[in-house]
Amino acid sequence: MHAQQRQRTQERLAQGGLTRALFADIHSIKWLTGFNPPIQLGPSFFVGGPPLLWYDNGTFTLIVLDGHADSVAAFGAQPDCTLVTYEGYTIQKPITGGPNLSAVLRDVVGSSAGGGPVGVEARSLTFLLHDVINDVLGGVTSSTIDDWLAPLRMVKTAEEIVKLRDNFALSDLGHRVARQVIKPGLREIDIWAEIHGSIQREVGERVPLGNDCVVGYRQNNIGGWPGDLLVREDDSVIVDLSTVRHGYWSDSCATYYATKPGEAQSAAHRMIEDALAFAISLVRPGVQANEIDRKVRGFIEARGYPVYPHHTGHGVGVTGHEEPRIVPYNEVPLAAGMVILLEPGTYVPGAWGVRLEDALLVTEDGAEVLTTHEKGMMG
Amino acid sequence: MHAQQRQRTQERLAQGGLTRALFADIHSIKWLTGFNPPIQLGPSFFVGGPPLLWYDNGTFTLIVLDGHADSVAAFGAQPDCTLVTYEGYTIQKPITGGPNLSAVLRDVVGSSAGGGPVGVEARSLTFLLHDVINDVLGGVTSSTIDDWLAPLRMVKTAEEIVKLRDNFALSDLGHRVARQVIKPGLREIDIWAEIHGSIQREVGERVPLGNDCVVGYRQNNIGGWPGDLLVREDDSVIVDLSTVRHGYWSDSCATYYATKPGEAQSAAHRMIEDALAFAISLVRPGVQANEIDRKVRGFIEARGYPVYPHHTGHGVGVTGHEEPRIVPYNEVPLAAGMVILLEPGTYVPGAWGVRLEDALLVTEDGAEVLTTHEKGMMG
Repeated sequence: MHAQQRQRTQERLAQGGLTRALFADIHSIKWLTGFNPPIQLGPSFFVGGPPLLWYDNGTFTLIVLDGHADSVAAFGAQPDCTLVTYEGYTIQKPITGGPNLSAVLRDVVGSSAGGGPVGVEARSLTFLLHDVINDVLGGVTSSTIDDWLAPLRMVKTAEEIVKLRDNFALSDLGHRVARQVIKPGLREIDIWAEIHGSIQREVGERVPLGNDCVVGYRQNNIGGWPGDLLVREDDSVIVDLSTVRHGYWSDSCATYYATKPGEAQSAAHRMIEDALAFAISLVRPGVQANEIDRKVRGFIEARGYPVYPHHTGHGVGVTGHEEPRIVPYNEVPLAAGMVILLEPGTYVPGAWGVRLEDALLVTEDGAEVLTTHEKGMMG
Repeated sequence: MHAQQRQRTQERLAQGGLTRALFADIHSIKWLTGFNPPIQLGPSFFVGGPPLLWYDNGTFTLIVLDGHADSVAAFGAQPDCTLVTYEGYTIQKPITGGPNLSAVLRDVVGSSAGGGPVGVEARSLTFLLHDVINDVLGGVTSSTIDDWLAPLRMVKTAEEIVKLRDNFALSDLGHRVARQVIKPGLREIDIWAEIHGSIQREVGERVPLGNDCVVGYRQNNIGGWPGDLLVREDDSVIVDLSTVRHGYWSDSCATYYATKPGEAQSAAHRMIEDALAFAISLVRPGVQANEIDRKVRGFIEARGYPVYPHHTGHGVGVTGHEEPRIVPYNEVPLAAGMVILLEPGTYVPGAWGVRLEDALLVTEDGAEVLTTHEKGMMG
């Protein structure tokens, strides 16, 4: 699992002159190994530090809390990656996750025969653990590699695209439910609970769900968690959904109406449908992210509508928001295999808003739309 | 908000000879400030490191991601605690949360006029941030304070007990729903979705929900996430619920039946009811945690049932599992103001299980039961 990710990473480290590295960012480690611990209730109370992935001349060692060992699927069959755990909770003695993790890291790093600097994810590695590698390797020089994987993560592997498609099918389901249930008198949270329950019943397990479910008359009606605000007769409701399954995120948005939308809303909705179609038409390998951003903003501005204050889109994978970011400064060119979101919108604060969002797989000659949810007007 | 926590901490640091400290553990910081960022979807993609709380001679400075600023309730009125944010995501330039956090920490620590060592939460502090304080304060000695707050967190303040009571009311609601809906043919996830939806509708917002929803015929039927396993005609179903609201956890368990329970199950259920009542009768200030643990295990053993392999109970607060742990090694004496769970059970792997759990506030002369969910047999 995720062998291509490790191969790309090994090449990147070699280019940077590194034969050893310690990864400590949860997203790096998910991407490199498929490690997928539950996230719904926040961090485990028993960890002694971040999960770690030690790279040493072609082989990887993943070090995680014993309670998270079953979150590493199919680990028996990884010739280049070994799993090691440390003890977290036991009823037999006081909890010492921190020292236990340090001790395991000491053993793992101690078997390193190489020399030279060690790459470290410095934003996530704790200094106690850094001291361990320093100590074991005799005052080794550490070199920061925090942002090295972000560009590699942009182009998805076939294995990742399968996981992403599974998630887009779930957010599509969520949108079918939203379209069916939204009506005056429901609250945002009622709609949300219906969507979330349907998704979890579909797959037979808990699924984390983001992002927004907001009525149009909110002052900030761009996004936000669902609350106890009632859907009014003439309301728009923006529903923006991410599911997180297999450690991967989906993302998609549509705008629904409590009843038949008014003139202004209808016109804006049609305009945003056109803006999204226009945005999709721009996607192909080689086009720069900020070119898409500029053109889509221009499209909306030319039609006399307020331009959305957020990004035009972003990549998605082990996070819900990653490179390539479709934003004004970003000159990164799209490439086949990237999976991106495009999400133009227009908002009248305190009145109504419209946003529509599709996910796209960049192909050799354009894009495949991965989301199938209906985005046309209701009513 | 949480001023008493900061007062206790200041005293503890002074006892340890420290007038400056840097907290980096999310649970410490929640407890010290009321900081309560969303947890449902895992860590924010835009943080540059952990949230930080700098203590310097009587005043605290909380440093968090700008996107988390509204997760610090009522911060205007804290004379001893200031809020500072650093920039995370913007569409105007590349994301540099790490350097931004370092820069803010540099400013905050730079105003320190004191000398002497700095206490640090070494298991959570990243080494980049440790370098900042080292650098700004000129090679300061850092002293590890990772476990200093755990004993202070045991006795709850009046403010915390209000937050905990709110959560116990929600898990009580969840149990009412469970008791109502459980029947043959439903799956664990169906039951879960009903419970979770009801709780969220009740409060009008999203609420994270733990812990277990398992049918009796699972091989490991002690606990686990709900799956697509069907409730069978003669099944027991253990439902163990934690809600997380205001940053505080509830916890409570009951065992339900698909139909009228059989002889053996009925007898075991009654025995565990007695065991829980016995456990509660032991709670008073001064009794050692492991005395309760030993006596409750003995109660079950004396009746010829398999003794649960897990803890007898634990504390609860900003985490769902904290001191005082009611386990064999723990000699800590209970004290008025502690909030603990007691959860005896007995399990026949692959067949059925029973666990019942109540929450207790230790009072001057005994205990107040904080949970009101019905735990008697169904059918």
